[in-house]
Amino acid sequence: MLTRIDHVGIACRDLDQAIAVYESTFGLAVVSRERNEDQGVIEAMLRVADAPAGTSYVQLLEPLGPDTPVGRFLASRGEGLHHVGYGVTDITAALAAIGATGVRLIDSRPRHGSMGASIAFLHPKDVGGVLTELVQAAESG
Amino acid sequence: MLTRIDHVGIACRDLDQAIAVYESTFGLAVVSRERNEDQGVIEAMLRVADAPAGTSYVQLLEPLGPDTPVGRFLASRGEGLHHVGYGVTDITAALAAIGATGVRLIDSRPRHGSMGASIAFLHPKDVGGVLTELVQAAESG
Repeated sequence: MLTRIDHVGIACRDLDQAIAVYESTFGLAVVSRERNEDQGVIEAMLRVADAPAGTSYVQLLEPLGPDTPVGRFLASRGEGLHHVGYGVTDITAALAAIGATGVRLIDSRPRHGSMGASIAFLHPKDVGGVLTELVQAAESG
Repeated sequence: MLTRIDHVGIACRDLDQAIAVYESTFGLAVVSRERNEDQGVIEAMLRVADAPAGTSYVQLLEPLGPDTPVGRFLASRGEGLHHVGYGVTDITAALAAIGATGVRLIDSRPRHGSMGASIAFLHPKDVGGVLTELVQAAESG
């Protein structure tokens, strides 16, 4: 079902500062920068590596304000790992299969994610306390 | 420098229970289970996907006791994402390059990680609040 670790999502207070850290430390490059009103963030995708199943990224997330999911995360836990996204080839089928196991779906239908992907979140309480995202990339899976 | 997202490390209170969740939800399979006294954990590696640069895993970590790094993490933050590990081909060269940027190294020399890998941790305060591990896999990189 899972084709790759698509990305790790990292909450930060200042997107430009976080980008500079990941560029200088690891030599990563930003391949996309988007404002996502739906999720209340400005985000940047930095390419870690390409593979046949798709690209893996570091996703840096700055909240649009304190009263957003990432804003509340920063207030309670500070900067750091926020979620993990796994690649799938068919997100609708994956959601149906996972929902059938009893795991609660935050998104029962896919919504718009970074770089044109279809994404959906699973409830962290049902997957070991980890906010978990499924990602079907725009081109393939 | 980075060849892949090698793994996401997830802290859990009960390793068998966490394995059961990841098996049933995502169909992942355990490929290694080890006790690491040095890090104070029992851990399981579940394969997410294979790629030319190496395999990506979910790493589940149960502390050997409360007075261990993962035990203290669970007490303060609960179950969930603990760290991320990135693949490198030459961990000694990577540590030298990263140290030269001013990022503090928790491990200035590689130590023993899962499945015979050489690993080293970077200081989370210098990389956006994320406990970050470099992994040179046993066979290649």
